[in-house]
Amino acid sequence: MDNRVREGNMIDRLDQAVSVNNSLLCVGLDPDPKRIPAEFMKEDFPFFRFNREIIDATAAEVCAFKPQVAYYSASGRERDLELTVEYIRNNYPHIPVILDAKRGDIGSTADMYAREAFVRYRVDAVTVNPYMGFDTIEPYLEWPGKGVIILCKTSNPGSGFLQDLRVNGEPVFELVARQAAALWRENRNVMLVVGATWPEQLKGVRELGGEMTFLVPGVGHQGADIGQVVRNGLNRDGRGLIISSSRGIIYAGTGRDFQKAAAVEAGRVKEEINRYRCGSYSNVRSS
Amino acid sequence: MDNRVREGNMIDRLDQAVSVNNSLLCVGLDPDPKRIPAEFMKEDFPFFRFNREIIDATAAEVCAFKPQVAYYSASGRERDLELTVEYIRNNYPHIPVILDAKRGDIGSTADMYAREAFVRYRVDAVTVNPYMGFDTIEPYLEWPGKGVIILCKTSNPGSGFLQDLRVNGEPVFELVARQAAALWRENRNVMLVVGATWPEQLKGVRELGGEMTFLVPGVGHQGADIGQVVRNGLNRDGRGLIISSSRGIIYAGTGRDFQKAAAVEAGRVKEEINRYRCGSYSNVRSS
Repeated sequence: MDNRVREGNMIDRLDQAVSVNNSLLCVGLDPDPKRIPAEFMKEDFPFFRFNREIIDATAAEVCAFKPQVAYYSASGRERDLELTVEYIRNNYPHIPVILDAKRGDIGSTADMYAREAFVRYRVDAVTVNPYMGFDTIEPYLEWPGKGVIILCKTSNPGSGFLQDLRVNGEPVFELVARQAAALWRENRNVMLVVGATWPEQLKGVRELGGEMTFLVPGVGHQGADIGQVVRNGLNRDGRGLIISSSRGIIYAGTGRDFQKAAAVEAGRVKEEINRYRCGSYSNVRSS
Repeated sequence: MDNRVREGNMIDRLDQAVSVNNSLLCVGLDPDPKRIPAEFMKEDFPFFRFNREIIDATAAEVCAFKPQVAYYSASGRERDLELTVEYIRNNYPHIPVILDAKRGDIGSTADMYAREAFVRYRVDAVTVNPYMGFDTIEPYLEWPGKGVIILCKTSNPGSGFLQDLRVNGEPVFELVARQAAALWRENRNVMLVVGATWPEQLKGVRELGGEMTFLVPGVGHQGADIGQVVRNGLNRDGRGLIISSSRGIIYAGTGRDFQKAAAVEAGRVKEEINRYRCGSYSNVRSS
């Protein structure tokens, strides 16, 4: 296992963050040069500077942070991403970091992508694409404690093209969910991506997925209904969801007080999620 | 279209390279720190150094070069990749460069991935994953002249998990091929990935794909039968294939003469491909 990273388990860290912050909210760290404060762009690491402020402002409200790698690689700002993950690990070690990369490739290349995520960036989990088959997902499972989050039903309008095709009456995304659930029974760090824009499908995936955790993007900017997401997606412990919002939170304010605006919006979304959790789960604290 | 890149058309450049070099061979530039000469690893840009030697040695034998981005991002060597593409553009401007990245994400993020490929790295084409639906592929089509190569039937053993599922009697990979062919009729820069390990499926995709170009990985290390690939995959012009080999060529030799070994092996594979092309196409020169 040479330099396989052993530094705690993704799911344990997530459980801790959910408990400490009483939150299922994940904040996406997707810095856009056109939207972050212009004066930051004069610094050496403008994306890191922006992220640091967002992280400090929202760290009490979240169960995870999720940088989307494309925002960094589009403009050669990989170092900003490294610094961002390092900052979270040093200052908020109980909060897991998910690299949203949607990687997918054959074995030898998948191993390189796993190294990118787990050695270079030292994140706790990475999103992966199942189109090439589950043999291309295996290399990620060889990293002890690291989370592997498989695309199942994605939030975009056109996601049905392949994902909703029916094979023997069953949609493809449910086939992916069943296969992932089988892996999850052996490795608790396997998770699924299910878009918040598809609450009915989320219900079906919950039935197949047992207590598995789902990463649910699409609240905020993409405008999904949080109540439906929470009611249909929670597992029996009143958990099992990482509900992710990026632009809706990090660009909640555009002026000098963008940190405060992000903190307020993160707190608001967290509480909205918890209101629906409280309906069914007495172990969730309401504010 | 702000800073959309206009610097020639992928398919025109490919046609030129195929003609000038009389070749359908693509060399994959996947530098592995464990396999490139140890003394290169002491330099600032070891991957670029290795690639430069491979490029000079094989540039007369290929129709394209294809760096796989994971090999660079695994160890933070994006600068090596930038230098590699720049070197090809400056020294072999008739040879297109394909970034093998297999990207796939929703619109706003797909736009970032397109910028990574076409603005940052200035490549001619990028590979993309269709699992999320064709709305996630559209952002790449907005770049005039740039190639978009959609995963169809991949070379790995487990590729059938989703790709071979039958919907109304038709396998999913053929559904992807039909959809891509419809796009290709409007935009000649749309292409498909079909693994050389599936020559029968390649035949079916050729029937659906018209004169479209296919990127065909899996010869060499993955051990596909070149004769079958060429016979089943050529279009009516005796072209339409970019047959890619990485490890089989760049690591053909391990000693000081690795460049010569790569040149010899590239020449050998090119000629093997052309032998099968010559069987049916009088416009192909045999050596």
